Amino acid sequence: MNRPDEKEIIGILASALGIAELDDVATVTAGRQRLVFKSDMLVGSTDVPSQMEPWQVARKSVVSCASDLAAKGAKPVAAMISLGLPRGVTRAYVEGLAKGFQTASREFGVKIVGGDTNEAAGLVIDCSMIGISKKIPPRSGARPGDAVVVSGMFGYPAAGLAMLLNGALSTGQFRRRAIDSVLEPLPRQKFGTTLARLFTASMDSSDGLATSLYEIAVQSGVDIQVDYGSVAAPGVDEFAKANSLDAKELVFYGGEEYEIVATVPCALVARACAAAKKARTEFHVIGKVTKGVGRVRDGRSVLQNRGYAHFS
Amino acid sequence: MNRPDEKEIIGILASALGIAELDDVATVTAGRQRLVFKSDMLVGSTDVPSQMEPWQVARKSVVSCASDLAAKGAKPVAAMISLGLPRGVTRAYVEGLAKGFQTASREFGVKIVGGDTNEAAGLVIDCSMIGISKKIPPRSGARPGDAVVVSGMFGYPAAGLAMLLNGALSTGQFRRRAIDSVLEPLPRQKFGTTLARLFTASMDSSDGLATSLYEIAVQSGVDIQVDYGSVAAPGVDEFAKANSLDAKELVFYGGEEYEIVATVPCALVARACAAAKKARTEFHVIGKVTKGVGRVRDGRSVLQNRGYAHFS
Repeated sequence: MNRPDEKEIIGILASALGIAELDDVATVTAGRQRLVFKSDMLVGSTDVPSQMEPWQVARKSVVSCASDLAAKGAKPVAAMISLGLPRGVTRAYVEGLAKGFQTASREFGVKIVGGDTNEAAGLVIDCSMIGISKKIPPRSGARPGDAVVVSGMFGYPAAGLAMLLNGALSTGQFRRRAIDSVLEPLPRQKFGTTLARLFTASMDSSDGLATSLYEIAVQSGVDIQVDYGSVAAPGVDEFAKANSLDAKELVFYGGEEYEIVATVPCALVARACAAAKKARTEFHVIGKVTKGVGRVRDGRSVLQNRGYAHFS
Repeated sequence: MNRPDEKEIIGILASALGIAELDDVATVTAGRQRLVFKSDMLVGSTDVPSQMEPWQVARKSVVSCASDLAAKGAKPVAAMISLGLPRGVTRAYVEGLAKGFQTASREFGVKIVGGDTNEAAGLVIDCSMIGISKKIPPRSGARPGDAVVVSGMFGYPAAGLAMLLNGALSTGQFRRRAIDSVLEPLPRQKFGTTLARLFTASMDSSDGLATSLYEIAVQSGVDIQVDYGSVAAPGVDEFAKANSLDAKELVFYGGEEYEIVATVPCALVARACAAAKKARTEFHVIGKVTKGVGRVRDGRSVLQNRGYAHFS
């Protein structure tokens, strides 16, 4: 029998629905208001390391939507939570989830207004969120000459997962940041809401840095040039070496990384940098947009257009 | 260990989030626009009879949101679909789902703007939908003297499920309508959008007629009086008798019934009836609202405040 992979599944659905991309935040006009609308499903059996406490699981299920809205500069307005819970779930577990939703609601400034509960084979949490924004940057607006900017360095979540799932060894600040980035990821709301008005294109890096850069490059019809040295988290090289891992794999192809990747016209980079400083949010220029055909280069080598995929 | 039932689970979550009710459509103010926002999760292992084709499953996953919006008189604006699919799902199955989403999108007039795909133990579909409405009737607005009105008769889905799951026997139009109501349920969009401006309270009957009437009675602080004879679907008595089933159970306590239950001021019933006739949508007065304390009576007997519940 014919068993499609995730990309093919998305293709079948998106083409039937007449939309370009299924897994993206959407812009919607409702009456007199433009909205951003996003939903994201967390599946317990595939998305949750065993070290994650119930409140962290619930909080994380809201992070992906908050991150996607942040990349579009949108302020969250309301969220809905649909829950699938196994029969026999304990009160303590449900109370843990409830605490996590409460934490997420306060931390990300979004009211959870309702939802749905169901019995399911295993834990499933679907979060959907709407937000508003004055200007919503597309993925397709990058222009040659733009600078590529990001909200933080890359490699922590893939390293953290290697520690939690495979026992990779590390110590000190790198270990703490890597594990925190998995158990309590931070959507970059301040970066997004402060700077989105200056972006020509933006998205979050939740499917990996390489995929995000390719998405912007392909949709904008440009090439993007970055440099490994300017995107790798401090300590990732040493960590990779000590554990016989490929540092570039961790930095470019790890998923669940909630940084914002955006392009800014060259003339506005100084202003963006000053605004980020004033808002006390990390800001890094990691490369530039050039004329091209949708290619992404790290130094002289062309990156692969791949990220994390289900069903593979 | 302490294992909460569905009502307790909802209570724990709703109280942590500071909301009155988790499983309800929510009203949200986004910038200059008031919106209705709803999400609903369909779980393959508990919500799908084996006779349901993939396109019907996908279509049905959109029905619940469309029905809740209809009960509030809201016009759908956009929907998101999050999918959990088992590893090894076939191309034909995914194409079936895609066809069903396409059908639902056209039939219910809602653009599906995006979503999310994941690997899960079994099929899970979460639909979230936003809509707009000029006036959004609450559940708490019923006043003594109001008439109770509905968009159709009750008992078809519970009878249809008895046929599909337990081999209950039936023939002719009743059988066809009962099975259709399970496999291809119809949200009452025309009834809702035509009449919602006249409602003092409204909701859909997806958790059962008795639960819906209680919800309105309790939240409004009134009693409701209905009569079995005016709510039972034609043929349900004969069907129940022939299969040794309790007809009142089918009519009052069956779930997955997508009729609208609403209250209308007595002086506006004639206008509502005329508007329904003009719009060619079914319209029935089934009882009245009286002073009280949240009780619902069928004739002289008090109905039970229960409906379909997971985890029971």
